[in-house]
Amino acid sequence: MFNNPDMQPSEEKLERLRASMKEHNIDAYLIPNTNPHLGEYSPDHWRIIEWLTGFSGSAATVVVTDTFAGLWTDSRYFVHAENQLAGSGFTLMKPVLSLKKDYDSWIAENIKQGSRIALDGIIFSIDRLRKIEKLLEGNRISIDTECDLISELWTDRPALPSSPAFDHPLFFCGKDRASKIDEVRAEMRLIKVDYHLLTSSDDIMWLLNIRGNDVKFSPLLSSFAIIGALQILLFVDENKIPLKLAREFDKLEIIMLPYEETAGMLSTLSPDDSILITPSATSAALYKSIPEGMKIQEDVSIPARLKCVKNKTEIENIGNVMVKDGVALTKFFYWIEQNYGSMPMSELSLAEKINNLRLEQENCLGPSFSTIVAFNEHGALPHYSPAAETNFVIGPQGILLIDSGGQYLDGTTDITRTVAVGIPAEQQKRDFTLVLKGTINLANAKFPAGTRGYQLDILARKALWDDGLNYGHGTGHGVGFCLNVHEGPQSISPVAGADSKTNIEPGMLLSDEPAIYREGMYGIRIENLILCYQDEETEFGQFLKFDTLSLCYIDKSLIDTSLLEKKEIEWLNSYHSEVYEKISPFLTSEERKWLKDKTDDL
Amino acid sequence: MFNNPDMQPSEEKLERLRASMKEHNIDAYLIPNTNPHLGEYSPDHWRIIEWLTGFSGSAATVVVTDTFAGLWTDSRYFVHAENQLAGSGFTLMKPVLSLKKDYDSWIAENIKQGSRIALDGIIFSIDRLRKIEKLLEGNRISIDTECDLISELWTDRPALPSSPAFDHPLFFCGKDRASKIDEVRAEMRLIKVDYHLLTSSDDIMWLLNIRGNDVKFSPLLSSFAIIGALQILLFVDENKIPLKLAREFDKLEIIMLPYEETAGMLSTLSPDDSILITPSATSAALYKSIPEGMKIQEDVSIPARLKCVKNKTEIENIGNVMVKDGVALTKFFYWIEQNYGSMPMSELSLAEKINNLRLEQENCLGPSFSTIVAFNEHGALPHYSPAAETNFVIGPQGILLIDSGGQYLDGTTDITRTVAVGIPAEQQKRDFTLVLKGTINLANAKFPAGTRGYQLDILARKALWDDGLNYGHGTGHGVGFCLNVHEGPQSISPVAGADSKTNIEPGMLLSDEPAIYREGMYGIRIENLILCYQDEETEFGQFLKFDTLSLCYIDKSLIDTSLLEKKEIEWLNSYHSEVYEKISPFLTSEERKWLKDKTDDL
Repeated sequence: MFNNPDMQPSEEKLERLRASMKEHNIDAYLIPNTNPHLGEYSPDHWRIIEWLTGFSGSAATVVVTDTFAGLWTDSRYFVHAENQLAGSGFTLMKPVLSLKKDYDSWIAENIKQGSRIALDGIIFSIDRLRKIEKLLEGNRISIDTECDLISELWTDRPALPSSPAFDHPLFFCGKDRASKIDEVRAEMRLIKVDYHLLTSSDDIMWLLNIRGNDVKFSPLLSSFAIIGALQILLFVDENKIPLKLAREFDKLEIIMLPYEETAGMLSTLSPDDSILITPSATSAALYKSIPEGMKIQEDVSIPARLKCVKNKTEIENIGNVMVKDGVALTKFFYWIEQNYGSMPMSELSLAEKINNLRLEQENCLGPSFSTIVAFNEHGALPHYSPAAETNFVIGPQGILLIDSGGQYLDGTTDITRTVAVGIPAEQQKRDFTLVLKGTINLANAKFPAGTRGYQLDILARKALWDDGLNYGHGTGHGVGFCLNVHEGPQSISPVAGADSKTNIEPGMLLSDEPAIYREGMYGIRIENLILCYQDEETEFGQFLKFDTLSLCYIDKSLIDTSLLEKKEIEWLNSYHSEVYEKISPFLTSEERKWLKDKTDDL
Repeated sequence: MFNNPDMQPSEEKLERLRASMKEHNIDAYLIPNTNPHLGEYSPDHWRIIEWLTGFSGSAATVVVTDTFAGLWTDSRYFVHAENQLAGSGFTLMKPVLSLKKDYDSWIAENIKQGSRIALDGIIFSIDRLRKIEKLLEGNRISIDTECDLISELWTDRPALPSSPAFDHPLFFCGKDRASKIDEVRAEMRLIKVDYHLLTSSDDIMWLLNIRGNDVKFSPLLSSFAIIGALQILLFVDENKIPLKLAREFDKLEIIMLPYEETAGMLSTLSPDDSILITPSATSAALYKSIPEGMKIQEDVSIPARLKCVKNKTEIENIGNVMVKDGVALTKFFYWIEQNYGSMPMSELSLAEKINNLRLEQENCLGPSFSTIVAFNEHGALPHYSPAAETNFVIGPQGILLIDSGGQYLDGTTDITRTVAVGIPAEQQKRDFTLVLKGTINLANAKFPAGTRGYQLDILARKALWDDGLNYGHGTGHGVGFCLNVHEGPQSISPVAGADSKTNIEPGMLLSDEPAIYREGMYGIRIENLILCYQDEETEFGQFLKFDTLSLCYIDKSLIDTSLLEKKEIEWLNSYHSEVYEKISPFLTSEERKWLKDKTDDL
């Protein structure tokens, strides 16, 4: 994904883009790093910023004027971006979140009165557009939201993905299409909307029990849908739907229409009706197709609210997937220890190794995100992925952080383990143990129904804060079921944002991943997936707890036992005996012996 | 404050109100329990609901139609309201917050299409009005916001308060008027507003270093102000301002105008200018006086953001006030123990006793809120205040909760102590100790700058949650400086509301008051005021801590030491020795000996 020497250089593309801007009388052109579904991973067709600038990170926005070309990304990508943008003609711009200095405030401060800004509303969410419009209020700057200058310039642009969809059977997903559709419609009646626009492909995958292969890391089929009281309009390339599925859809009054006709169909709805949309996931183009006068409700989508609570079958399947995933990880770490010193190991080779071990497991489709293998100072970059240019050889001494996950037909995983290479230093052990205390204390939480993620976040940080340490990201994200590894609306984070109204509910799957990053030295993160379940009900209401589902030993050589409280040691010992019990049946006798040692009581 | 038998009965007033509604062609009349400043405590002139219904609680809304008369209040007042509304013709309505069922949703569901609703916009915030308008959207119901039906009916209505203002000298408040005004104007320039409307009287008291006596419990002078770049328009009854103060105001270009002319002057501002207002504290009437086209910014007021961070002088003064307040409390509890059994004691007599002991202290103006003395099951009603009808005699056995505070010229206090009468039961000790753990763990928090109150709230609850217990209110509120005992915008609460963007900053004073309420049995609450200060700065940023300022022993006879961790015992012992050290010099030798025992190490 790095600069390809065969490709046209970025500077030349930039020049051509500027020429096109001039021709169209545009003073500033905005390019977001998104796609029409506003999802996290984009098909190659929509990787405009990578094509234009060479930058491959997932979060970026580009602003081009006659005299300036800047790329905004967030702190986790600064090092990457600095390398990839060298010589591209693009300046790396660093947003200052505390001052709300992002690309949009740059525009508000630098674009002259009377200017004309343009962007392609097909890949720009209405949420973001509103924010810019608000910042520019009273500035006499016009925004053309229907301007695609890229298609013309990008001559060898990859086509839209064309992978076929497939059925996600009931023994995996646990609830049939008809029931899910009924549930969504019941919610629609409750909030009195006639239509519900679905723009996030994973919502549609969940609702229709299908999966696709249009996007890396997530089994998605690019599609839109409009749910009405009797019919569902499904906007998708018909060739991607196998006949058997198409027949099932017919029975449920799911009408397939061409993907490109979504906006057109939206515009034919009656202005007397009402529609529910999700502003952060709805493109400005689709939003503007909604007939004027139509009553628009804005909220998290109903499928998002339903699918984040896993059903009984899904929970059972996730339990099985955790065993498979844990077996792959255990074999991986065993293999490292057996072969370390006798064969060269690098970040890239280890990433390949763990990916392959997962693929050996039943029903594994591949990694659920770009595998992170980060040795020493690379670990201090929270979203570092190994690449040829930066690849470290592992050893002789240091901290190895591995964050990886798998997509399985029966669930999605995401787990981070940090292990010592050689003898760890005292500070490394102290840091690791404080992070571990965080992982354990969140996992051990008991809390009343109605509690929100932002209330629990401190449990994972408290031990670090007491030592003057902290980490700059959230503690937990929702996880899909054979869907996106980052799934909303729930989260555990210091930020109480728009989704802060989301209670943590029984059946929700979340990550639990406190960390510490010592710049230039190493990073430590311990991540498990935790599932919320009902605990006791008292006169003060229903209480909830978490069950830790991920199954992989935690490196005891990095633990300073003197820092752990009794109940923390108990948690770890009990966790380790569960890991041994569930994983050992699938190991060779050597591996089993090795794991016994790794999971012995502290 | 309870039903006065001499007064006209509520039913007759209700009949006359309905006649007036009919005459004015009004289908539903709304009465909020507020005043033109939307503050917590209302002068008697504005206690319309108490006059009309007999209900004396601070939170209430009344809706009257031809066939229905309902009063909505919150759960802390249900018992009170039930008693006070008996025979009044008003039905007690209980909002269901989880379903958002409040008076406004009742209106939306019960008022017929084509109806006409009316209210007096002078005492109705624009925030609340917008909420109703939103709920009624599309319902073809008109809202008359300029309808005062009460003045005509309430013939013996108390006049507006006319107490004189007085100067709050620099050695108390620590910063002169001119500097405060400069600071506010600097902030106004930063956010580019020409005017700033101040509607909360305490904002004006702080800004102008004055205090008044228009309201019970808070030293406020009813007033409005408009701050411009060069002048300040102060809307206040001129007779209330002593000549010396008036001359000081002259020098600072503070122009006094009649209180009633606020709306009129607002309407003369230029529509080309901009103004900052606070929607929750601005009446619909004032809001509607702002000229059309004027750019309105809405946010917490600038004085509110500045005054919540106490300055050095204020902090020093608060420290002294805490000693005085602690001396009054110590003498109070000593007196109870010496006299218990030999003279009758009731909730009311104890409330009078503590109020009087505070008044003996230098610069004490009176209680900062209605003193709570609640024995046994009364303690389970979080906002119970003793009254003749409910007054309990203390003894022979039980739990006594006392929540009280003082207004001093040099600070405001708010403290709760719960003590055992007789030998406490095991459950009472366990409950008390879990609450105490909460008080201590919040007081002991160390957290990075930028942390918000909703992140810290769980620290006070965790020990309770682990036992399946909880309390239904927030953990901490801001406290004014010789101003409102409840002061925003900071808070420590599970709710991340509109003010959730408020970081906890050095200099902020907050309460720390976890609790447990056992319905029909007893209540336990332990409340201290805590002050945020800067702790160490590390490579991960600036860290902050709290200093506990309140000085009164905590009843050890209610502590189950086996439930406390080592660092909690250390905190308590160190707190107790500080209490003894600071309070004992002001006690008699008998009191001192007694306090030594109360504060001895656990």
